Amino acid sequence: MDNAALYNISYGLYVVGTKIDGKNAGCIVDAFIQSTSAPVPTVILCSIQANQTNAAIKQTGEFMVSILSADVDPFVIGNFGFQSGRDVDKWANVPHKFVEGLPVLDKAVSYFRCKVTDFKELSTHTVFFCDVIGAERGEGEPLIYGDYQKFMKPKTLEAFKQYKQTGKAPSTYAKWVCTVCGYVYDGDVPFEDLPDDWKCPLCGAPKSAFVKQ
Amino acid sequence: MDNAALYNISYGLYVVGTKIDGKNAGCIVDAFIQSTSAPVPTVILCSIQANQTNAAIKQTGEFMVSILSADVDPFVIGNFGFQSGRDVDKWANVPHKFVEGLPVLDKAVSYFRCKVTDFKELSTHTVFFCDVIGAERGEGEPLIYGDYQKFMKPKTLEAFKQYKQTGKAPSTYAKWVCTVCGYVYDGDVPFEDLPDDWKCPLCGAPKSAFVKQ
Repeated sequence: MDNAALYNISYGLYVVGTKIDGKNAGCIVDAFIQSTSAPVPTVILCSIQANQTNAAIKQTGEFMVSILSADVDPFVIGNFGFQSGRDVDKWANVPHKFVEGLPVLDKAVSYFRCKVTDFKELSTHTVFFCDVIGAERGEGEPLIYGDYQKFMKPKTLEAFKQYKQTGKAPSTYAKWVCTVCGYVYDGDVPFEDLPDDWKCPLCGAPKSAFVKQ
Repeated sequence: MDNAALYNISYGLYVVGTKIDGKNAGCIVDAFIQSTSAPVPTVILCSIQANQTNAAIKQTGEFMVSILSADVDPFVIGNFGFQSGRDVDKWANVPHKFVEGLPVLDKAVSYFRCKVTDFKELSTHTVFFCDVIGAERGEGEPLIYGDYQKFMKPKTLEAFKQYKQTGKAPSTYAKWVCTVCGYVYDGDVPFEDLPDDWKCPLCGAPKSAFVKQ
């Protein structure tokens, strides 16, 4: 028996957003499927029992699912996958909004609100059966887990390492905008680390003309 | 609420192989995930209650999952997805082998044997909880359901239409081999429909030098 045969099961990647004791919680998941479409859409989520998100879902019975896009910043994956919500407010590190009180990624391909109707404990995971009670589409193509493994994992590890070393989430999340022409800085170097004589590549305005948004 | 937001959940495509009353059964599925890995790998399959495959799984408690490859012949998808096993022996239409008595696609990226440990009925589907009791890797990359929708659906419909019109599965499944040089015919035209003066493109042997394997 070659257990690696199971690696060929295809998944997307998703960020669960929920609450525990009134605080934001969340984690990354892949084992998530739609189970029926009628009379209401239902989904199944497998969640690791030891995760804070698992306890959060059990406490409130509700969560949001944000579908990661193929061009997601790799840091988002490390942020939600490589640390515990018991130690850090993961949502503070990424651009997000609240929909009916629950956090959703700004750049989700789609997001939907799930209401738990039943659950079943397996050895290490809980299987949550849920009704989908809200759903909205965004932009972009969904990230495939296999592509993350093939193309994105080293960048994810590097982005997370930098975050742990500096204590700062990537500056790509602090949006710096030129007040002269509206250009939005999106370089790999954190905006704060650009040299003082750096200029807006669009209109030539000085670095000081940029504001954080 | 935009239900189409759920279309961005990513899946693979799989052929379930099982038995009912001693006969082969099977269908295509997408809602299939690994749910735990320890102490044994477990998986979850959502299966439409009305399908013969659902009854077959309930009868025997076991099934095989063949993971479709990205270069799968589109007919395989139509064969297992667009008709009922109550009307036709689907497995007779595609190249397959038997592993411990259950049918598996010859060209599966991986396949594994699942043993049902529990199940739960939803509105239209049954959720099967299973231990994985055997698993083997083949070749190739898994097909992503979104890519099937984008690139392969018209070919699938066309291949299935031809099959329904002619009553014959595509000749690509009947492997014709040149007895002189070993060349394997893989053209789009069914081998039987090639003109009598057709010659082996490799060694020039006549059509009559080919044998069906």
